[in-house]
Amino acid sequence: MKKIVLLAMGMVSVLVAQAQNEQVKQNPQSSEIWTPVPPVITPGVPGPTATGTTAPSDAIVLFDGRNTDQWVAIKGYAPSAWENTNEGPLKWPVTDGVMYSTKGFSARSKQEFNDFQLHIEFKTPEKVEGTGQGRGNSGIFLQGRYELQVLDNYDNPTYVNGMVGSIYKQAIPLANPSRKPGEWQTYDIIYTAPHFNKNGLMTQPAHVTVLLNGVLVQNHTAIKGTTEYIGYPRVQPHGKGPILLQDHGNPVGFRNIWVREL
Amino acid sequence: MKKIVLLAMGMVSVLVAQAQNEQVKQNPQSSEIWTPVPPVITPGVPGPTATGTTAPSDAIVLFDGRNTDQWVAIKGYAPSAWENTNEGPLKWPVTDGVMYSTKGFSARSKQEFNDFQLHIEFKTPEKVEGTGQGRGNSGIFLQGRYELQVLDNYDNPTYVNGMVGSIYKQAIPLANPSRKPGEWQTYDIIYTAPHFNKNGLMTQPAHVTVLLNGVLVQNHTAIKGTTEYIGYPRVQPHGKGPILLQDHGNPVGFRNIWVREL
Amino acid sequence: MKKIVLLAMGMVSVLVAQAQNEQVKQNPQSSEIWTPVPPVITPGVPGPTATGTTAPSDAIVLFDGRNTDQWVAIKGYAPSAWENTNEGPLKWPVTDGVMYSTKGFSARSKQEFNDFQLHIEFKTPEKVEGTGQGRGNSGIFLQGRYELQVLDNYDNPTYVNGMVGSIYKQAIPLANPSRKPGEWQTYDIIYTAPHFNKNGLMTQPAHVTVLLNGVLVQNHTAIKGTTEYIGYPRVQPHGKGPILLQDHGNPVGFRNIWVREL
Amino acid sequence: MKKIVLLAMGMVSVLVAQAQNEQVKQNPQSSEIWTPVPPVITPGVPGPTATGTTAPSDAIVLFDGRNTDQWVAIKGYAPSAWENTNEGPLKWPVTDGVMYSTKGFSARSKQEFNDFQLHIEFKTPEKVEGTGQGRGNSGIFLQGRYELQVLDNYDNPTYVNGMVGSIYKQAIPLANPSRKPGEWQTYDIIYTAPHFNKNGLMTQPAHVTVLLNGVLVQNHTAIKGTTEYIGYPRVQPHGKGPILLQDHGNPVGFRNIWVREL
Repeated sequence: MKKIVLLAMGMVSVLVAQAQNEQVKQNPQSSEIWTPVPPVITPGVPGPTATGTTAPSDAIVLFDGRNTDQWVAIKGYAPSAWENTNEGPLKWPVTDGVMYSTKGFSARSKQEFNDFQLHIEFKTPEKVEGTGQGRGNSGIFLQGRYELQVLDNYDNPTYVNGMVGSIYKQAIPLANPSRKPGEWQTYDIIYTAPHFNKNGLMTQPAHVTVLLNGVLVQNHTAIKGTTEYIGYPRVQPHGKGPILLQDHGNPVGFRNIWVREL
Repeated sequence: MKKIVLLAMGMVSVLVAQAQNEQVKQNPQSSEIWTPVPPVITPGVPGPTATGTTAPSDAIVLFDGRNTDQWVAIKGYAPSAWENTNEGPLKWPVTDGVMYSTKGFSARSKQEFNDFQLHIEFKTPEKVEGTGQGRGNSGIFLQGRYELQVLDNYDNPTYVNGMVGSIYKQAIPLANPSRKPGEWQTYDIIYTAPHFNKNGLMTQPAHVTVLLNGVLVQNHTAIKGTTEYIGYPRVQPHGKGPILLQDHGNPVGFRNIWVREL
Repeated sequence: MKKIVLLAMGMVSVLVAQAQNEQVKQNPQSSEIWTPVPPVITPGVPGPTATGTTAPSDAIVLFDGRNTDQWVAIKGYAPSAWENTNEGPLKWPVTDGVMYSTKGFSARSKQEFNDFQLHIEFKTPEKVEGTGQGRGNSGIFLQGRYELQVLDNYDNPTYVNGMVGSIYKQAIPLANPSRKPGEWQTYDIIYTAPHFNKNGLMTQPAHVTVLLNGVLVQNHTAIKGTTEYIGYPRVQPHGKGPILLQDHGNPVGFRNIWVREL
Repeated sequence: MKKIVLLAMGMVSVLVAQAQNEQVKQNPQSSEIWTPVPPVITPGVPGPTATGTTAPSDAIVLFDGRNTDQWVAIKGYAPSAWENTNEGPLKWPVTDGVMYSTKGFSARSKQEFNDFQLHIEFKTPEKVEGTGQGRGNSGIFLQGRYELQVLDNYDNPTYVNGMVGSIYKQAIPLANPSRKPGEWQTYDIIYTAPHFNKNGLMTQPAHVTVLLNGVLVQNHTAIKGTTEYIGYPRVQPHGKGPILLQDHGNPVGFRNIWVREL
């Protein structure tokens, strides 16, 4: 509580200073939406009929369970962080074919992409700690800018535009098909890049379709701009971009990551 | 300045109180974006070749220059205002075939629509007063919820997601083809309504294409939710909705308003 | 060859007769496109990490391996066929949890749907017979009108808008991730229904996104009209529609069919 | 009639030859659709409130009423024709600020475009001759490949996917707001180019929105491929493309042509 008071006190001077040019900052809670709440769904279970799990022959494998050679480390967890830093080889531990996010560094793929299909599997810690956004939090930044949220949302309510399956602070998922903590979950993502004109304006937004554990959570959703923890989506022209895996302080495991350029 | 300090001081207690449930309010400036800036364009001028101005034969005429019979008055200017009030007949003055927005009451069409094409002409006051959002401000709320901004933006910078031609606080226009204060300007709007499922979730956003003075300013733009002066777009299921003309304290004139249901 | 000459001779009189009212019929080959050819891709293989295979908790199971109670029989294989016939209970044989298409009757789901996510698995005969469209041919008609092609396309070229993964005679797939004859293959389909106005005109086309064996083959593809074997897509207003499984004379097996209404 | 018999006789050998590789040709009538019929609408008339007619300040003027310097002549009227020919300066007559299509040569703009807004005005001959497609026929080929039909459709029925306002043989217009023969008509066109991948496959179709005489006739319509008089739309990768004005044997007048790159 004390921290919040101090934060708020600090905001006073910020507000005074910035109100003059009409560019006052907001706080993180400003962009949280709490309704409508997507239905909880139990996804199907793996079985002998399962298909499509390993990489197709034309895929670029970003993690095959052995090493993190396809990634570099970047400082912090904010999307803006990756732009300016390259902390060298990613040192996330790899254990039993799984790489785990580690406090302090996020992961950025060395390769960059335009339109793509991305498959990625994740598991949040089996031992449940924290609540809301504090439980099993990570994220997948498409083209390094647009976050598809990763969160332990099993029996753990949070604002709906911050749920697993959301485009963070922009688009509520159509369902919550979360598996239990410690169980493997699957994202299948279809992404088309935005287009910008010579004036730097967006003539076509990025679009994303997402299946979480085989259940549709985003259907050709238009992405309005960059993911911002505090503030509104920004329009920033860009070309190809990397896949970024966020470290948010929780050891989230990843495996079987592959991309197909479309 | 004093007012802002007080406002900010007030925010401290608000922040302290609300941080506990993570639903802190933001202020209006939080959702303003200032770049990239759309190019200023001089639109074409009327001439003997002009076509399409008056209502086509299948249009519903909402204002033909004679009276405001197609409208009711609603209190205030906020989009939420119209939902609960019906102040009876709209008493905006009609002079020389023009209806003028009057302080204190906005206008809501009696008829409601789903998908439509809307033509509307407006002029901001010839005598320039105020700056930024304070000059010639009004708005057209599509289905009563999604604001296409009306503003005197001629030689009058403001945040780009609040410019004339913007979907207010959601989508920057592709250009600024404003005419001078006091000159008639034209909006041609193509709107398709959003779809919602039984869970109240949006399965398809509204889309809007807008020509301002014959120049494209929005091209099949997805609308993410309701227009909010303070805070984020909301997802609220709805059926047909009215056209709402905002009174924002500036006497903006309107004429030649017609709708075609698509 | 003789048959074709006779067919062609017959066309002469047809042409002469019909040219007068400008409504001459075409033959099936008219609507075949042969380039560009989608790349052949080996899809990933099932493994212990596979997820999402069985029905999620909110799905409607159309076939669970036991019986065909969710289906009725319809005559023939043309999409127009289903509209007028209901031949009673579907008598496709069910063996070892698989239902097999049988010559002469197609299958129509009893339930009808608007927007949906559909999961379905199929296998074409292990014993290869025929070539081109004659090998392992079936089809899945979305809302009973729009055919997603089923075909043994493994090492079996055909016109590209008739390949497995195509919207038959309308949209070329992005890839050919066919498995070998006799192997199980998986379709994950996201479908949004078209919209029509009071004039019977289409104001929004159906859209479909399709993963075949986990590989994207259609990405938010607009469907222009009904699937026609001979002739062009038609615009025919409709409401909810069934899932139809085509019998094309080849014993194609189906299993694990479920639908989620979106 | 004789001509048709001969044409049909010729088709016999073509059919015999081509059936062997399943690439039989169709005739022009194959791709005509006759229902549903768009409603006839009387568009609005020009008036003192008209705006947006002349070119905005950022437009590229392709015809300002004086000369045809922005165009070259190409042989014939088929879309395929323009690709291979450049017959030098366009010699369409310019009279009273109007350029008229002349039998035998179509017009191709020297400049090429990607996404654009196009304004163009046309009038079909005041003296009515011919019926159906034979009356006041011309066309505007977007990026030289996708035809927006020009036709005297006033009290002159034809197949609905060949009407004025149609994407020829692909998309029925939403309305028929034709003016009388000899009257000026206006097209306002918003076009976004298709995208192709390294395999030559279309990852995103072209989209087009069209107002005819101020009335919406196409709303973000997906274009499936090239316009073909005989046969199906083709998928052919391309970059920037020109505006092409078709000569179809009728002296159709054009004026006030401008393009804005988006």
